[in-house]
Amino acid sequence: MGWLRQWYLLVGLVLGSTGALAYDEVVEKQVFELPSFKTVGGRTIRNLRVGYESYGRLNAAGDNAILVTQYFSGNSHAAGHYAGEQKRGYWDAVIGAGKPFDTDKYFVLSVDTLANLNTRDPHTVTTGPASLDPDTGKPYGLRFPVVTIRDFVNLQKALAEQLGIRHFAAITGASMGAMQAMDWAATYPAMVESIIPVVPAGAEADPYLIATMHLWAAPIRLDPNWNGGDYYGRAEPLAGLAVALQQVTVNARSPAWARSGFARRWAQPAANPLESLDNPFAVEQWVDEQALARARVSDANSFLYLTRAVQLFQTSGEGMGNGRIKARVLMIPARSDLLLLPEYSRRSVDRLMAQGVPLDYFELDEDGGHVDGLVSIAKAGEVIRRFLDH
Amino acid sequence: MGWLRQWYLLVGLVLGSTGALAYDEVVEKQVFELPSFKTVGGRTIRNLRVGYESYGRLNAAGDNAILVTQYFSGNSHAAGHYAGEQKRGYWDAVIGAGKPFDTDKYFVLSVDTLANLNTRDPHTVTTGPASLDPDTGKPYGLRFPVVTIRDFVNLQKALAEQLGIRHFAAITGASMGAMQAMDWAATYPAMVESIIPVVPAGAEADPYLIATMHLWAAPIRLDPNWNGGDYYGRAEPLAGLAVALQQVTVNARSPAWARSGFARRWAQPAANPLESLDNPFAVEQWVDEQALARARVSDANSFLYLTRAVQLFQTSGEGMGNGRIKARVLMIPARSDLLLLPEYSRRSVDRLMAQGVPLDYFELDEDGGHVDGLVSIAKAGEVIRRFLDH
Repeated sequence: MGWLRQWYLLVGLVLGSTGALAYDEVVEKQVFELPSFKTVGGRTIRNLRVGYESYGRLNAAGDNAILVTQYFSGNSHAAGHYAGEQKRGYWDAVIGAGKPFDTDKYFVLSVDTLANLNTRDPHTVTTGPASLDPDTGKPYGLRFPVVTIRDFVNLQKALAEQLGIRHFAAITGASMGAMQAMDWAATYPAMVESIIPVVPAGAEADPYLIATMHLWAAPIRLDPNWNGGDYYGRAEPLAGLAVALQQVTVNARSPAWARSGFARRWAQPAANPLESLDNPFAVEQWVDEQALARARVSDANSFLYLTRAVQLFQTSGEGMGNGRIKARVLMIPARSDLLLLPEYSRRSVDRLMAQGVPLDYFELDEDGGHVDGLVSIAKAGEVIRRFLDH
Repeated sequence: MGWLRQWYLLVGLVLGSTGALAYDEVVEKQVFELPSFKTVGGRTIRNLRVGYESYGRLNAAGDNAILVTQYFSGNSHAAGHYAGEQKRGYWDAVIGAGKPFDTDKYFVLSVDTLANLNTRDPHTVTTGPASLDPDTGKPYGLRFPVVTIRDFVNLQKALAEQLGIRHFAAITGASMGAMQAMDWAATYPAMVESIIPVVPAGAEADPYLIATMHLWAAPIRLDPNWNGGDYYGRAEPLAGLAVALQQVTVNARSPAWARSGFARRWAQPAANPLESLDNPFAVEQWVDEQALARARVSDANSFLYLTRAVQLFQTSGEGMGNGRIKARVLMIPARSDLLLLPEYSRRSVDRLMAQGVPLDYFELDEDGGHVDGLVSIAKAGEVIRRFLDH
């Protein structure tokens, strides 16, 4: 089907720029629907809908695709901007024409997960505990099935097949996205040429990460408005969700971030923290405000489902396959990461090397903590470009 | 007054063993009372009472004392055991006859802080928000003044003077105890020969530690039973305090701890976490149980006061003095510490070295995390012994 590719290139030339039909940085959320989806846990989700975005064009062979998988509190808005909006996708620095994930060469796809956190964000489309259960016409709440990283992967695979993708040149993602990339390579090795896990957790959730997710989830259950997950249509557990998101916010940052951004300043110059417990430091106030703003667009139950998905993450094990990865791997941890510790990556690297997997390793040498996987991704740009050109 | 020391030695010999009048490992909590105490914040606490313990004997010159300062959730039970009880003090491995903090040579003193957490522990004596305000006859609640590490130090100094201590051969403590040791050396340099900060925070609370303390405190305020700190005599915020203590428990541990203790096991063999959010992993259940047990002997408001004391920790600054340390320093961070990061120590070491402070540095090379400052202290035993013999 090379003729089709030639035709696209020709049209591009006729229109005066290869960018004309290519990715112009204005993106639109699209929706993938499935009448029925079976989870790893054996449950069925009906009338499933998730959002996705794509940048660039799929070639006729269906083999120039790159999948970008989403992080815990993110969605599929990885690059570009919506018409009439300024805000860029979180990896816009590395996705686009001439950028490391080059949309002149690749068809870059990004998909909202199940139980996505941002249920009140108009640009997120997801199916999760806040969705209506077709059996009852009411929100699922905790009746929604437990979902896993493997379920996210299987759903992406169904979408990929519908779009005509036969092979991924690369699958990449940050944090929980890196889990999906690892799981893809372990589960569907024939479809994956390479993976680029960024600020990754390794090949499974470390038991200490299971404990960390437990800490994240606990404040939600503490909020009386949570009410066993049955809160839709009444007062929602906003305060508990905000405290949960405070942990996400701080755990993903670093001492250098706090020192340079806030030092030991007080929130209000006239309100000395020595005088009252109600007088916070500046960093405390910022964390409160940031977390509350995120809580307002998020769903508490979905937060609980995502923490469980992270805990259950395992590329191999009973019912999960042997976890053998054949893809080339470029692993990109962040030196200052206090959440998905570089030691998780190193353990995984040792294991992959022992299995003979071709492995490149590049440590983001920044001071920002876990969020360097998002905000400092450009520092890995040339490494990514060389890896993809291999 | 050397004759007094000779007399003690003689009596010891007559009784057949130098241990007879020395520390025999059975300890008793004693109580230090002050009619009035003025805080750094300028408030007065009346009828103040705190507990203390001592091991060994003070010499006539009053210069063989070693002060052991308490960690965040601890108390002054550093060594030995109470009559009729088996449980040993937390640093029993290094405090005693012939041990690194040798009670045949030193008078070892340990003092409960103000706002000590363990208000329901019969072996803790403290004055804090759960105490009765003499002005009203009711518990202080949030009317108790904000207290600081410097206040803990000033109170210890008052006790030391009452006991006849003129000079400390060493002041040591783990975690929040290390803050007190640093603050002693910075504030009363003439009284302190040496300090041994273990799993320390450096010379002040890092802004990121301020944020971490904010995370610790948040669940308490989320519990409706907390009621603005006014809960004494009715249902207490046990659930919120337990979630706060879950963070203390996990933050003080490490990935190696979770892997070796729990791996990815489920709490109940028949309750797969894939099947329900209510089916926890083993590590989650342990953290829940551990934190709840600690919450049952603890006071939520005191927890808030201690997090603020940690946030306010600063050996120098406005109203706090110039922070110049003259004592010899043996700094003992833990390599795997995820709470008081080794980088906090290293920043402090750089600063002390630049000031010409004689500094020894020994990193606990264990995998347990922050609690290695307690459970692995024996690994630093010989280093401590040599440092004290200097």
